[in-house]
Amino acid sequence: MKHRSSPRSHLPLGFRFSSAAAGLKPSRRADLALVESVPGTAAAALFTTNRVVAAPVEVGRKFIAASHGRVRALIVNSGNANCATGLVGIRGCQRVCSQVARLLQTRTEEVFPSSTGIIGVPLAVEKIISKLPELVARRATTHQAVCDFAEAIMTTDTRPKLASACFASKSGRVTLLGIAKGSGMIHPKLATMLVFLFTDMAATPRPLKYLLRAVSDETFNCISVDGDTSTNDTVLLMASGQSGISLREANIERKFRKALLEVCRSLSEQIVSDGEGIQHVVRLVIEQARNRDEAKQVAQTIANSLLVKTALAGADPNWGRILAAVGRSGLAVDSRRINIYIGGELVCQRGQSRPFAVQKVHAEMSKPSYEIRVQLGQGHAACGYLTTDLTAEYVRINAEYST
Amino acid sequence: MKHRSSPRSHLPLGFRFSSAAAGLKPSRRADLALVESVPGTAAAALFTTNRVVAAPVEVGRKFIAASHGRVRALIVNSGNANCATGLVGIRGCQRVCSQVARLLQTRTEEVFPSSTGIIGVPLAVEKIISKLPELVARRATTHQAVCDFAEAIMTTDTRPKLASACFASKSGRVTLLGIAKGSGMIHPKLATMLVFLFTDMAATPRPLKYLLRAVSDETFNCISVDGDTSTNDTVLLMASGQSGISLREANIERKFRKALLEVCRSLSEQIVSDGEGIQHVVRLVIEQARNRDEAKQVAQTIANSLLVKTALAGADPNWGRILAAVGRSGLAVDSRRINIYIGGELVCQRGQSRPFAVQKVHAEMSKPSYEIRVQLGQGHAACGYLTTDLTAEYVRINAEYST
Repeated sequence: MKHRSSPRSHLPLGFRFSSAAAGLKPSRRADLALVESVPGTAAAALFTTNRVVAAPVEVGRKFIAASHGRVRALIVNSGNANCATGLVGIRGCQRVCSQVARLLQTRTEEVFPSSTGIIGVPLAVEKIISKLPELVARRATTHQAVCDFAEAIMTTDTRPKLASACFASKSGRVTLLGIAKGSGMIHPKLATMLVFLFTDMAATPRPLKYLLRAVSDETFNCISVDGDTSTNDTVLLMASGQSGISLREANIERKFRKALLEVCRSLSEQIVSDGEGIQHVVRLVIEQARNRDEAKQVAQTIANSLLVKTALAGADPNWGRILAAVGRSGLAVDSRRINIYIGGELVCQRGQSRPFAVQKVHAEMSKPSYEIRVQLGQGHAACGYLTTDLTAEYVRINAEYST
Repeated sequence: MKHRSSPRSHLPLGFRFSSAAAGLKPSRRADLALVESVPGTAAAALFTTNRVVAAPVEVGRKFIAASHGRVRALIVNSGNANCATGLVGIRGCQRVCSQVARLLQTRTEEVFPSSTGIIGVPLAVEKIISKLPELVARRATTHQAVCDFAEAIMTTDTRPKLASACFASKSGRVTLLGIAKGSGMIHPKLATMLVFLFTDMAATPRPLKYLLRAVSDETFNCISVDGDTSTNDTVLLMASGQSGISLREANIERKFRKALLEVCRSLSEQIVSDGEGIQHVVRLVIEQARNRDEAKQVAQTIANSLLVKTALAGADPNWGRILAAVGRSGLAVDSRRINIYIGGELVCQRGQSRPFAVQKVHAEMSKPSYEIRVQLGQGHAACGYLTTDLTAEYVRINAEYST
């Protein structure tokens, strides 16, 4: 995909990475991952909007508030979401954090927990805790350690997801590294998606939170694979300050925001294109809306319509399904003002069929990625949104997940 | 399915049925259908809530208002939705109605049009009009004519859908017959679903509308196959008055409402169980909600979750996906109060996993139909809702529909 960059050239200063296999995944693959950061690292986090949240979300939210946005370590397990596990799950999560804190000689509330995997199965806390000394001993600043970390947090992902960016200032260079996991359950408002962002810029937690929220709204909140929102979604941004360059310096905020947008956009695209069983990534562009929220509402309705998604799977220019999805989006649209373009070809003009090169559009829709543009004829706002087709393979993967 | 009754024993007085093949379907099967009723027949109709509506919905809505709820004939075509066809589509629909009116010597606005099929393709009006004399000539009150009508309105349906009920009063017997089509795009708020209800009770349009709306809200608005809402959905109730028994007589309203509920419930079940590519019909029961609307909101979120629907396809007791869907329904739920039962077995207690007979639950979920019960622990309201699994077969059918 565009924007994907190798992490080789850019590692932010001040972070050490590590991973291990604790036996949580039946495959015995790596399922435990750690990042340690230097003292004084500032952090900001966003969490799922699902009302049912996993233990690490509850604990992480509490800890980052208690530490006033200071995070010294991130501990992630895959293979088990530690969700719907009650008080036992909360206590287990806290015990893991407190053990990590003890080994790294830091405070428990400066350890940020994260989990992904199956819901409703008790977390094997002892397995994790017995692996922690090894995990801590193996932490390193190598590219290999970063790549191993990215693999250890995967569940149904078919590939690790990394992106990085850097920018220069008079006094040096700032680096930003992003690592993500997620392929199913991807939807607006952060759905089983874990995203960890590391920068060596210096900043306080408050502006980090503001920037993280603004950029997430344009990237992670504008993608959808299946419309489900997970109980565990987390986006964490850590700033070690080791570059010696501060967010408060002239022009740095603008440059950092651009770098953050680039990394988050790349990770979003990587997540969507690794969507379970997908063949096509479709960029929806909704134009001529009264405001961006309305454009997004239309985009989401199209993005999650089973009939649209199955038509995309068949590379079928059945624009009537797109028009019908716009009609049920909840907006007071007038179909006589709506135009629909598929890959640049006008297929529906003022809500009506028009002759178009069906074979050409079918060929466009057979590509791995392309664009569908919907003009609402109501205003000047627009929204971009990534969605995927729905394949029989998606159904197969998800019908077989837990059994 | 339960409640399905043969139409053989019950035909309402005052209606004649007819069908023909006008060549709208590539299969050359019957695609044109007519019902003629006696003068003075009262009617009420409900239409799709989609903002993009087909020509027959626009015309039908206008005509039934203009005739003050008087309908003498119903003309339905399958194979083409006459949607996104602009002014030409509206005029074509009106021309068909006016030709039917001329042949039956009635007023154009007393002819109610209905269409189902592909969107965005111009309707072959001449093919329809040239078949009308034959259609009118063949109208009959036989059971065969009723069954042929039910087949002629089908699109991707695999079987015709009929249900009937009758009840006695001191002065005679009232009969109600219902005929429906629909298998894909089924969702709350009437989605490519056509439902035609015929009774020989006497009534004025206003109470018919009230009863139709109340009963539809409990039946057709509580089913979902794929979450999409069509541009053409219509529910029409016609009352010929030929039984001589009036809705205003003592106890008749109660009895009629019961019969209407029974017929509409049966048709709902038939529609869902004919859902495209489905293997399981699941009755969701949401209990202990603060009010029925909230219960329904939770039911809809579960009913349309791809992750839940694929788990149902695999007969996988992955209740974590159900809990996660409750969590993202928009309600302020407390997961520690939520219980989930699958086929009578408690699988999640107070939001947590508990030991249960996995094989027994898997066996229950392998049945063609079963129940999932979710208790929210917030109040005393409840809602029943029918949904289906999502299979690879659904994807296959819908990826190949128009091409």
